[in-house]
Amino acid sequence: MTANNVILENTALFSADHTALKKKYVRIRQQSENICQPLEIEDYGIQTVPETSPPKWHLAHTSWFFETMLLKPFLEGYEIFDSLFSHLFNSYYDTIGTYHPRPERGLLSRPTVAEVYQYRAHIDTQMSKLLNQADHHERNEIIRRTTLGLNHEQQHQELMLTDIKYNFAYNPLRPAYLEMPPPPTANKQVLQWHTFEGGVKNIGFHVDEFGGNEFSYDNESPRHRVYIDDFQLASRPVTNAEYIEFIDADAYRDPDLWLSEAWKTIQQNHWQAPLYWEKVDDVWWHMTLTGMCPVDLQAPVCHVSHFEASAYARWAGKRLPSEAEWEIASENLPITGNFSDQGYLQPVAAQKKQSDQPLLQMYGDVWEWTQSPYTSYPGYQQAHGPLGEYNGKFMSSQMVLRGGSCATSNDHIRPTYRNFFYPHERWQFSGFRLAQELT
Amino acid sequence: MTANNVILENTALFSADHTALKKKYVRIRQQSENICQPLEIEDYGIQTVPETSPPKWHLAHTSWFFETMLLKPFLEGYEIFDSLFSHLFNSYYDTIGTYHPRPERGLLSRPTVAEVYQYRAHIDTQMSKLLNQADHHERNEIIRRTTLGLNHEQQHQELMLTDIKYNFAYNPLRPAYLEMPPPPTANKQVLQWHTFEGGVKNIGFHVDEFGGNEFSYDNESPRHRVYIDDFQLASRPVTNAEYIEFIDADAYRDPDLWLSEAWKTIQQNHWQAPLYWEKVDDVWWHMTLTGMCPVDLQAPVCHVSHFEASAYARWAGKRLPSEAEWEIASENLPITGNFSDQGYLQPVAAQKKQSDQPLLQMYGDVWEWTQSPYTSYPGYQQAHGPLGEYNGKFMSSQMVLRGGSCATSNDHIRPTYRNFFYPHERWQFSGFRLAQELT
Amino acid sequence: MTANNVILENTALFSADHTALKKKYVRIRQQSENICQPLEIEDYGIQTVPETSPPKWHLAHTSWFFETMLLKPFLEGYEIFDSLFSHLFNSYYDTIGTYHPRPERGLLSRPTVAEVYQYRAHIDTQMSKLLNQADHHERNEIIRRTTLGLNHEQQHQELMLTDIKYNFAYNPLRPAYLEMPPPPTANKQVLQWHTFEGGVKNIGFHVDEFGGNEFSYDNESPRHRVYIDDFQLASRPVTNAEYIEFIDADAYRDPDLWLSEAWKTIQQNHWQAPLYWEKVDDVWWHMTLTGMCPVDLQAPVCHVSHFEASAYARWAGKRLPSEAEWEIASENLPITGNFSDQGYLQPVAAQKKQSDQPLLQMYGDVWEWTQSPYTSYPGYQQAHGPLGEYNGKFMSSQMVLRGGSCATSNDHIRPTYRNFFYPHERWQFSGFRLAQELT
Amino acid sequence: MTANNVILENTALFSADHTALKKKYVRIRQQSENICQPLEIEDYGIQTVPETSPPKWHLAHTSWFFETMLLKPFLEGYEIFDSLFSHLFNSYYDTIGTYHPRPERGLLSRPTVAEVYQYRAHIDTQMSKLLNQADHHERNEIIRRTTLGLNHEQQHQELMLTDIKYNFAYNPLRPAYLEMPPPPTANKQVLQWHTFEGGVKNIGFHVDEFGGNEFSYDNESPRHRVYIDDFQLASRPVTNAEYIEFIDADAYRDPDLWLSEAWKTIQQNHWQAPLYWEKVDDVWWHMTLTGMCPVDLQAPVCHVSHFEASAYARWAGKRLPSEAEWEIASENLPITGNFSDQGYLQPVAAQKKQSDQPLLQMYGDVWEWTQSPYTSYPGYQQAHGPLGEYNGKFMSSQMVLRGGSCATSNDHIRPTYRNFFYPHERWQFSGFRLAQELT
Repeated sequence: MTANNVILENTALFSADHTALKKKYVRIRQQSENICQPLEIEDYGIQTVPETSPPKWHLAHTSWFFETMLLKPFLEGYEIFDSLFSHLFNSYYDTIGTYHPRPERGLLSRPTVAEVYQYRAHIDTQMSKLLNQADHHERNEIIRRTTLGLNHEQQHQELMLTDIKYNFAYNPLRPAYLEMPPPPTANKQVLQWHTFEGGVKNIGFHVDEFGGNEFSYDNESPRHRVYIDDFQLASRPVTNAEYIEFIDADAYRDPDLWLSEAWKTIQQNHWQAPLYWEKVDDVWWHMTLTGMCPVDLQAPVCHVSHFEASAYARWAGKRLPSEAEWEIASENLPITGNFSDQGYLQPVAAQKKQSDQPLLQMYGDVWEWTQSPYTSYPGYQQAHGPLGEYNGKFMSSQMVLRGGSCATSNDHIRPTYRNFFYPHERWQFSGFRLAQELT
Repeated sequence: MTANNVILENTALFSADHTALKKKYVRIRQQSENICQPLEIEDYGIQTVPETSPPKWHLAHTSWFFETMLLKPFLEGYEIFDSLFSHLFNSYYDTIGTYHPRPERGLLSRPTVAEVYQYRAHIDTQMSKLLNQADHHERNEIIRRTTLGLNHEQQHQELMLTDIKYNFAYNPLRPAYLEMPPPPTANKQVLQWHTFEGGVKNIGFHVDEFGGNEFSYDNESPRHRVYIDDFQLASRPVTNAEYIEFIDADAYRDPDLWLSEAWKTIQQNHWQAPLYWEKVDDVWWHMTLTGMCPVDLQAPVCHVSHFEASAYARWAGKRLPSEAEWEIASENLPITGNFSDQGYLQPVAAQKKQSDQPLLQMYGDVWEWTQSPYTSYPGYQQAHGPLGEYNGKFMSSQMVLRGGSCATSNDHIRPTYRNFFYPHERWQFSGFRLAQELT
Repeated sequence: MTANNVILENTALFSADHTALKKKYVRIRQQSENICQPLEIEDYGIQTVPETSPPKWHLAHTSWFFETMLLKPFLEGYEIFDSLFSHLFNSYYDTIGTYHPRPERGLLSRPTVAEVYQYRAHIDTQMSKLLNQADHHERNEIIRRTTLGLNHEQQHQELMLTDIKYNFAYNPLRPAYLEMPPPPTANKQVLQWHTFEGGVKNIGFHVDEFGGNEFSYDNESPRHRVYIDDFQLASRPVTNAEYIEFIDADAYRDPDLWLSEAWKTIQQNHWQAPLYWEKVDDVWWHMTLTGMCPVDLQAPVCHVSHFEASAYARWAGKRLPSEAEWEIASENLPITGNFSDQGYLQPVAAQKKQSDQPLLQMYGDVWEWTQSPYTSYPGYQQAHGPLGEYNGKFMSSQMVLRGGSCATSNDHIRPTYRNFFYPHERWQFSGFRLAQELT
Repeated sequence: MTANNVILENTALFSADHTALKKKYVRIRQQSENICQPLEIEDYGIQTVPETSPPKWHLAHTSWFFETMLLKPFLEGYEIFDSLFSHLFNSYYDTIGTYHPRPERGLLSRPTVAEVYQYRAHIDTQMSKLLNQADHHERNEIIRRTTLGLNHEQQHQELMLTDIKYNFAYNPLRPAYLEMPPPPTANKQVLQWHTFEGGVKNIGFHVDEFGGNEFSYDNESPRHRVYIDDFQLASRPVTNAEYIEFIDADAYRDPDLWLSEAWKTIQQNHWQAPLYWEKVDDVWWHMTLTGMCPVDLQAPVCHVSHFEASAYARWAGKRLPSEAEWEIASENLPITGNFSDQGYLQPVAAQKKQSDQPLLQMYGDVWEWTQSPYTSYPGYQQAHGPLGEYNGKFMSSQMVLRGGSCATSNDHIRPTYRNFFYPHERWQFSGFRLAQELT
């Protein structure tokens, strides 16, 4: 592997099906607008905390990505839509230039929502032109970057959902993002421990192994050897019922269970339950994308930080799995689950029909915190320039999550996918599953 | 004077012309919506700094005032529009209940703009009902509070303009609030000093003296005696041209000119000119409600803090007038000037037709900082309960400004009117005029 | 009055008794060291909050004042003790040069205490030389500035006591600054109201009126006319017993009583009683310079902010006096009281022997908050250069206190003396006395 | 391994030589006082930034550790020295009780230095009693905890040196902690790459392998298998000369080289060189424990953060070693180097006599940042209760450093020793060494 193809491992495959890419472009770009369909104009501009972004900003930034990485360098005669947008909608690409301060993305009433949709339409027209240039001398690079841009947009689609949820939960009126029938419930799934044999194993992306899903991020490579001991993994994530036991055991007041930074965090923020939870007349309710609902006891616990996942594990006498363990355990599982595409937009209780699988809900429902800090794999080479800023520069103080959530697109996830957030963050659909040494 | 009529001095007069009040209600309420007419939906929700508020919030809060102070206590069978609005749109009335944190007014996408207009329509319908109850046993109090509510709304109309300006100036796209022909220019008005004789004088509101304008705030009373020395007042406010001399004399770098707090403020914020000023190719431009324009050298300097006004005065070897001096000097002047109603929405150069008056631009154009801290007049009694929170509780660390500005309504201002802001604030249309001892 | 004698009004008198000045120099300089005599070396370096300073810093800064204002300009051949001291021990004189950040005065272990005493000895030797040059061509200025330097040092002596108290109260070990027998107690003094006639009055320093005390600060001048109404002043300050009634009436939880800024301050800081008070088994104790003691119910309440004084007055249906009222009321009173020189270093109950006076405890015991913001008197001219920074640049957002406290030197106070602090500050020995309109 | 011996792996050995432990106790406790011998009383109390502590606090806290972990539970009839000390000198043990806020350790003038020495003497007397109880039924636990207490004290000895250095460097007078002859210089050591073969390796503490040094912390266990690839390690740390090239290449202004958090850190803090460096007339100087000195170009660069080490490595086209690589490379090296005991108290250039070793300066001089986040080894069990708070609760967001520094005691370090600090911290003697893949 050389330095200039580190972001996308597997160039060759992309050119195979070019028409598919153009269709995918249209479908994924449309999906972002579908997500915003239930919003009022006013909802597009809100940023309640610095780590979230206004939906309008997501819509514009994902378009800026195509403009900056593809149209400007590769489409001859391309005229930029508005020169200030490069400043306004650059997220964090220091090698490209200045950017509007992240915590102040919600302070911009202009461009308006209509103008942002015009911007999107403009980008889509121009991208269509570019993708139709079958003989472009940078064709391979165009395909690679377009694929990256679409995966980038899917990541922002998930963020749009989590950010909208945060904004709506902040508002005392507690508006519902959309109306949906309540998700299915289910009986308690007894927790089982599945044993995996240790040894020298291979993890990381390899094109041959995952035939149907040829894209990966640079941070999933190179495929490499790790040594792991025998271990056991829980058959399903920790449920709300189980987490309530932890709360009721006064765990949020017992310093013995918490990392030092975790203890400071829960003290300073007065955390006593997962994000979005409220106790009403002794019953736990929580905010969802369909409004306030009682907590489903058998659904996986969600919107917990790594700090809380880790304290729960210590309280339970278990631990979180490493990302290598998670990846090895997931190797032969079908990538199905409660995803954003046809799912419930909230984690739901494990259903019976899944119960013949050894491991339930590995994909979808909730991102699963692992015990692994987000670092580079051995031999990883971070590219220079803006595309190198995509993943590598965040390899500091964050933790890896695996498996996707109810807000992730089905075709965006794979066994080697590494998501990462700070250990105190919990506005993502994040839960966890326990592991333990062989007993 | 008894405790229950301290806010409004002159109850008796109000009942005189009841039809006029209903017309005034309609006119002033409409004016708030007129101000918002050029806005996009997105513009209604922005709050760029804690001291400003979103236009949507102003529209709702002024309606909340009528609901809380009039409809709830006095309209039998009144049903509140939305019980949460009491929390969302209470500004600072601690005796009424909790309120949404001031710096977070911009984080609420709901209620939508349309819903806020529905809220306004609802309040207006109900207020109309209430005002039509000619035999209501609290009729006098209703008239008094309605009058207060309308004056309150006019204050918020001015704030809407200053807040919109701030939001638009913050946005790198620098949108114009509205298109207008450029305001008239004029030749330099030579500065003249007008002498006023000192002695024991009366200041403060007195119903008999200002026949056409019967309302006043409690903080303008009681009318009382003060002793002042002979003094001289400048014929016009300090102009941009004069202020540029001050800048060019490196005044922003000379600690000898500044109050201790002022020096800290200009250092910390890197102030080197009035708010909204930018130097482009050696020419000063500034943001206005009609977009970026070159600074008119003969217009009064605007958007300066008390700190800057005071440093300028020290640099010029003069001082700011006291509020008593300002009031005495203004006694026989007509209340005319560049107001928001038919004005330019920015300060303009003093015009020739005004020049037969001894003092130019005392009213309109810019609020004039005085050297007087905002405190109670001798014998002032702050009412108990929410209406007592209107003015009295802010009598700490703020400075008095006089005369109204280009964003003030013509019928909102009078000689005894006391506006007040913190000495570091400058997003209001604030300028100043010099005074000196008799030479 | 010309610009170059604004700080000290009355030059001529100073030269009269030159030997007295030299004696005074020795006495006052020695007094600073006497105050530090009970301290351990470790106590000299502590600064627990930015508004206090370490005792070592006070000792050095007062010496720096003589070095900078007298020795450098006037003593030929003077060699500075250490060139870095000008940076380290300049308090806030921006026109002189840079200074060590105020909040970080406690972070300097060097110079050591011994070195600071060497610095003081050096300054004293050199000042003695300078004061002995009877024919110095700047003799008058030397006398004027030396007098100012000694008054400056007396102000810092009071600050040393208040800062030591703050440091010791912060320490969980609650050390006593010194051992003293408990102060005398007394029966309750019934509150009486003394009436003063209004009219046009003169206030401010005038050399002829206060024969024995020829020095004054520039902020006490010029003597000028004010108009005041008839008023009544309480015969003694509000006592601890009275203040406890205010506490017990839940005043700290009633927003109706407080200025807006005051309410924020007590909420944010969780104030529920004066500074240094603690309730132990239902009895109020407080920290004093002699350690923790029960609160003496008949002593004046102390360590309250202007915010608290003002809320108490509103609760009691009274008000604070203006500084003009206080000064007029004090005109013919002897300047005696519980001062730092032979006093108790804490406010004590009004004693019988005082009770034939109409107004008790006007001087000493506690500084009395007035309702007057600290501003310039009409005609005040702030000098240019460092001596002009002494008082004038602080005329913003502070409130005037009058009368001196138990930590003030007897010969430092006079009727026209204007002390000033921010309305939220309460680590000074600050209390208050009520006033009211004529009933 | 069971839960109750996780802190100290190898109990059995400790009892072997009990007299040696008592001697060691006396020697190590004396060493803390030796370190403070050059200090003035004033120097004991200073805390310039929250992450440092005053030397007085270190002296007391290390004594508190023996009092809390040994004397209170195990010495019958033990009377505590001062009950408030448990609050004042508890560092962070949440399971023990409250503690004085870390950033305010410098605000306590009492207990005095003399009292802290009395406290130390008291603890030493009592510990001597306890260690002499040869038949104590908890004898093994006493030996284990005493050994831990001594290792704990050695860690604080290093912190005392780094904290004193920070305090003295902060002071504009730049005092020298002690006078010493300048350290030896040396010619440039050519950088060589040493190859190590990969495979499944064992790392972590194992009692049999390191005969002479039986103690280890719980975080070094369990010994476990890891898979590593072949790699190359640099023969010596990066030198000042090399780091200056990095500075001169404008690396501090090139966002391409830095992690996202690193870039924010260097921007916010205006970092342009290692901590303590100053350029004077185009020559780099730095603060040392012997005062300001020119930078020795051949000495290892020191006082750099992980962020800087990592940016340098990216700039150089290399990487930092993992902690496993470092440990494997160090396996057969003698533990000699420039340590605090007889060293220079600053990193010095690699000397010729060392040059027959393949790897220079692996021990001593500078702690070497690795690329490994500080996490638990597989199978690690954090003990419950206060001793479990020693290491495990800090396993979040910190990075591992290896090898000890010029401020570390010779007998405190070993190949498996894991030090850890946040990636932005640089007041420790921290440098780094490069690694690369096999070429």
